[in-house]
Amino acid sequence: MQARLKPAILGATGYAGAELTRILLRHPSVSTPLLLRHETGQRGPTTLAEAVPAFAGNGGYPLQPFSWTALHQQGVDLLFLSTPHQVSRELVPEVIARGIRVIDLSAAWRLKEAQHRAIYSFSDADSATAAELTQRAIFGLPELHGDQIPGAALVANPGCYSTSIILALAPLLKAGLIERERGIIADSKSGVSGAGKDPTARTHFVSVADNLSAYAVFAHRHSGEILEQLALTSAELIFTPHLLPIPRGILSTLYVYLNRPTEAADIETCFRDFYAGKPWVRVFSAPQLPEIQFCLHTNYCDLGYCVAEDRRRLVLVSCIDNLVKGAAGQAVQNMNLMFGLKETEGLQ
Amino acid sequence: MQARLKPAILGATGYAGAELTRILLRHPSVSTPLLLRHETGQRGPTTLAEAVPAFAGNGGYPLQPFSWTALHQQGVDLLFLSTPHQVSRELVPEVIARGIRVIDLSAAWRLKEAQHRAIYSFSDADSATAAELTQRAIFGLPELHGDQIPGAALVANPGCYSTSIILALAPLLKAGLIERERGIIADSKSGVSGAGKDPTARTHFVSVADNLSAYAVFAHRHSGEILEQLALTSAELIFTPHLLPIPRGILSTLYVYLNRPTEAADIETCFRDFYAGKPWVRVFSAPQLPEIQFCLHTNYCDLGYCVAEDRRRLVLVSCIDNLVKGAAGQAVQNMNLMFGLKETEGLQ
Amino acid sequence: MQARLKPAILGATGYAGAELTRILLRHPSVSTPLLLRHETGQRGPTTLAEAVPAFAGNGGYPLQPFSWTALHQQGVDLLFLSTPHQVSRELVPEVIARGIRVIDLSAAWRLKEAQHRAIYSFSDADSATAAELTQRAIFGLPELHGDQIPGAALVANPGCYSTSIILALAPLLKAGLIERERGIIADSKSGVSGAGKDPTARTHFVSVADNLSAYAVFAHRHSGEILEQLALTSAELIFTPHLLPIPRGILSTLYVYLNRPTEAADIETCFRDFYAGKPWVRVFSAPQLPEIQFCLHTNYCDLGYCVAEDRRRLVLVSCIDNLVKGAAGQAVQNMNLMFGLKETEGLQ
Amino acid sequence: MQARLKPAILGATGYAGAELTRILLRHPSVSTPLLLRHETGQRGPTTLAEAVPAFAGNGGYPLQPFSWTALHQQGVDLLFLSTPHQVSRELVPEVIARGIRVIDLSAAWRLKEAQHRAIYSFSDADSATAAELTQRAIFGLPELHGDQIPGAALVANPGCYSTSIILALAPLLKAGLIERERGIIADSKSGVSGAGKDPTARTHFVSVADNLSAYAVFAHRHSGEILEQLALTSAELIFTPHLLPIPRGILSTLYVYLNRPTEAADIETCFRDFYAGKPWVRVFSAPQLPEIQFCLHTNYCDLGYCVAEDRRRLVLVSCIDNLVKGAAGQAVQNMNLMFGLKETEGLQ
Repeated sequence: MQARLKPAILGATGYAGAELTRILLRHPSVSTPLLLRHETGQRGPTTLAEAVPAFAGNGGYPLQPFSWTALHQQGVDLLFLSTPHQVSRELVPEVIARGIRVIDLSAAWRLKEAQHRAIYSFSDADSATAAELTQRAIFGLPELHGDQIPGAALVANPGCYSTSIILALAPLLKAGLIERERGIIADSKSGVSGAGKDPTARTHFVSVADNLSAYAVFAHRHSGEILEQLALTSAELIFTPHLLPIPRGILSTLYVYLNRPTEAADIETCFRDFYAGKPWVRVFSAPQLPEIQFCLHTNYCDLGYCVAEDRRRLVLVSCIDNLVKGAAGQAVQNMNLMFGLKETEGLQ
Repeated sequence: MQARLKPAILGATGYAGAELTRILLRHPSVSTPLLLRHETGQRGPTTLAEAVPAFAGNGGYPLQPFSWTALHQQGVDLLFLSTPHQVSRELVPEVIARGIRVIDLSAAWRLKEAQHRAIYSFSDADSATAAELTQRAIFGLPELHGDQIPGAALVANPGCYSTSIILALAPLLKAGLIERERGIIADSKSGVSGAGKDPTARTHFVSVADNLSAYAVFAHRHSGEILEQLALTSAELIFTPHLLPIPRGILSTLYVYLNRPTEAADIETCFRDFYAGKPWVRVFSAPQLPEIQFCLHTNYCDLGYCVAEDRRRLVLVSCIDNLVKGAAGQAVQNMNLMFGLKETEGLQ
Repeated sequence: MQARLKPAILGATGYAGAELTRILLRHPSVSTPLLLRHETGQRGPTTLAEAVPAFAGNGGYPLQPFSWTALHQQGVDLLFLSTPHQVSRELVPEVIARGIRVIDLSAAWRLKEAQHRAIYSFSDADSATAAELTQRAIFGLPELHGDQIPGAALVANPGCYSTSIILALAPLLKAGLIERERGIIADSKSGVSGAGKDPTARTHFVSVADNLSAYAVFAHRHSGEILEQLALTSAELIFTPHLLPIPRGILSTLYVYLNRPTEAADIETCFRDFYAGKPWVRVFSAPQLPEIQFCLHTNYCDLGYCVAEDRRRLVLVSCIDNLVKGAAGQAVQNMNLMFGLKETEGLQ
Repeated sequence: MQARLKPAILGATGYAGAELTRILLRHPSVSTPLLLRHETGQRGPTTLAEAVPAFAGNGGYPLQPFSWTALHQQGVDLLFLSTPHQVSRELVPEVIARGIRVIDLSAAWRLKEAQHRAIYSFSDADSATAAELTQRAIFGLPELHGDQIPGAALVANPGCYSTSIILALAPLLKAGLIERERGIIADSKSGVSGAGKDPTARTHFVSVADNLSAYAVFAHRHSGEILEQLALTSAELIFTPHLLPIPRGILSTLYVYLNRPTEAADIETCFRDFYAGKPWVRVFSAPQLPEIQFCLHTNYCDLGYCVAEDRRRLVLVSCIDNLVKGAAGQAVQNMNLMFGLKETEGLQ
């Protein structure tokens, strides 16, 4: 590329936004990202370092209120949104209309079906533009939609739990190996950054440390993404998230029944074939299973498997760093694809 | 009771043994326990405090090598074994023959079926005495075998994972509510003390912190206990343990399919009826679920449940402190029953 | 005692209040404590278990709004306050006037000197009653004021940091061993429960985990207590608190210069003599030093020391559980002394 | 540079070695490092991924036994040693003699004075070559010895504690601001990776979690480096390390007395002047203090300060990531200087 890509980030002070900033600052093909905060009118931090002291040094990385003027004056090509869902829902139509491409880290544009969007209660339910954008948006899981992302104006970056679960199940479902009607179980465990930066009773250190808790059983809002992407019915999946006493990382343990007796080697082949040429998925050979630590601070999704002696029952383990492959890293992977860069660029 | 009960503990320096000592020292109906170490010949610590500095003060709690003389001179009524399985397998026959009752915290005497014992490779496979004791031993889960424990000479204290899983499933299985052939999933997560005190690469702080890992998939040796106690076949259960970055506590998430549409209220009634009069099981009403923190340092097994909208799928959450209800506390609960004491005594 | 002591706790839902409830429920000489919440008018939890689910079972432990009627009808002998400082400042004069004794876990009555109280900005600065009570209140550190506590109407329970620091320094200062003018350093590290239950950016799990931070350097409000109790000037002490990524426990490392060359044995003798007959201080012999784990969930203050080869420089290590010896346990120790009970009762 | 630099790493499977590998693999001016293991004769892992599964993918990164042949055939310019001290002591003379430059992460060549080396008991005490190399080796702290590192054949990479302490004190000592004879206190707290990868009772997760402990008081072997580099006598410094329940990171709290009343602004100026043009030290302006999190996974040493009201007492806070600025990152910073690269290259 002649000219470097100029990205902006709205919401750089959150966990995912800060991680995204960190990655983009190192990315060889992008200019320094324009850092924006949502609180347009109010006083707010004027550098990212004020809100996230890890960014001390190098001037602290200036942060300014969102404005169309700033976007246009700086020639922004791509806007990353790391904002509440409703903010994204309201802002994106105009961003797209102004010819700026968008990668949205919120859930605003991930879901095609109204029944799945209902849980978010977006206030624009009837807007024609929103309805049209909802259908045009590409679900930004490059391993599944790598062909559609390059041409997309709006990429809906997947949820963290969804990423870990979809990538583990997609190859086997595509190969028709899973006895879907018998039920698929996704038992996921996430670090606390997945719950966001707002301090609550639930994210208080003393509530989380030395603890583990299940929550939102049968009711987590990432379920819709998983069902839509895997073409499952809600009767075919149980997804249970848990809150782990660690800052970041997700491990999902998945339980499936196989349609026919299947050898471990065939499971591995199924995964390796599906992910051939996909740089950000690592398949572990049995008996080694991935652990959260192995992928922390990387964009990898690590997959492992264990087949029962009866060759009809299968346990899968899927690990990601929720802030990288589950958010900011995957967003950059999408950016790379949208702008014709190498899929791994800036993510090593 | 006129005279106080005199217990001895062999293996007081391990995690479970130290917890047991802590409980017995506070127990109003027992004399100071005789603390023994297994290394009969070698030099070893002469007080418990040397090995476990939390026991500093009060003389440090003398510790002596195991000897029959010491057991008899001090009039020991009950020997707790917190030793490797093989040690227990070798020692118990003579202890019982000498008229001293035993609560064994190892797995040596938990399993009736040879196929389940095989994983431990006990070297006495052919001994008639061992075979007889194996059948006589009572599995020390008071909520299931409370009627047999008072008369038992040898109580095999259950495994920690087993306790959390069996107590969650037993009421529903007894009520015939579970569609067993569809499969039961037990996804368990345990703190590191469950892995024992030996330092290994796997228990190194840096290996565990900021991590989660699954292990022994389809192969954990507690499976046998669970299957035997619940009269399940190995095809009906998948049990996956995980290592949590916390010192103690277990949370098991269980997935079962129901034989018929069942309301939440009926699930709760099933649990409450089964555990009526059982002081160490707490049933949480939906939507509240137990968390590991709630039961730490207590002898409670906490149970919660969540029924899907279709009333055919059920998620259970079961929490225990692996060192208390999963080991030392349950051992004392068994002791109380064996010696006619109140089931809660010394455990509040 | 014929009749059992009847305590009430105002503020049982906080960390220290819940710990206090836990201890009193097990205490053999007290009736079930009356649990009160401060929000008199508002709706609030009606059981402690609603706010602190670890108290599930046994009816959940009823909680009611504070009222004088309740105190009198139930014949309350002693009111524990685990409330904000200002609430305690306002409430205590009338409690005392009504003949109910008070142990206050806040800082409201700990400080005799106005310069030290200034940091709290109590709004009753000029009230004669408050001024009189301020002087009458006994600083509830039993190892220093054990003779005054039995007769006290109002005991000001010490701060957690203060307890760990004062107990380490008092014996050496009394013996005149410390070169005070050269400066004493107290570098303290505390678990997060010391920062209270309110969720803030600072107590968010992600802010604390994998971290350590110093705060309130030269400005922590416990400094006043330490200076007053040890009769030091502010020029003689530097106290720096740090926030540890653990739920509970304090370790203070203290640095002092000795007036004359002193052997390790003499340091130990100094400590052992000072704390002879004091059941809740454990002195560790060199080279063993106390660690936070050794005293967790106990009422011990553990003290250790290390003398330099030059015999003029001394490092002390002092550990407590901030919620037990640093708050609730010490409060019960004070209660025991106030009501003629054994100092260790209910605290084993 | 025309040709890329070819480094080799002996000891890539340890914590520091793996971190070093991670950095070098991303470094734009170096070829893929040759990874060597010390166990020349024995069987060992043939890829780094076997020992450190985070390196899965990309062939797992081949690992081979150390051999002179491999070094020469691959044209190695620079050998990093992340090996036990004695191994380094034995190996380095020949490496240097063969014309390969060395950055040694062990303590083998850090100390000029025999009294400080004594603690390591190197077996070559009398070797003339070793004695000569000991004096020729450059202590690889680029902020202090940046002028000598480019020409060095052997760079002794500093200890982690030493780095954090020396960088905090050097500017003030150079400016003559510190009243040295009154004593300097360095109270340091380190994550567990600093204790190495060998599993021991002390590094067991259960020993470290929920704990803090002081160790090696007046006796830590990094003291020698600190004293030599700062030209202090052992009477002028007390250094106390503590083990934190976190995987990585060091925070040192330093206490010094000032020779004359000094304003905060002058302290800050002193630091900023000293570190002008030094990219890897960040000075925080009061009242903000650095925290361990801010520098994790970076090569920064973060410095903060707080002056007492009397302007004579000063508290400093210094943070580094012990595996980066305290080991592997600093080693790469040294490499950059030795080979004429930009000091920040590969470290962003």
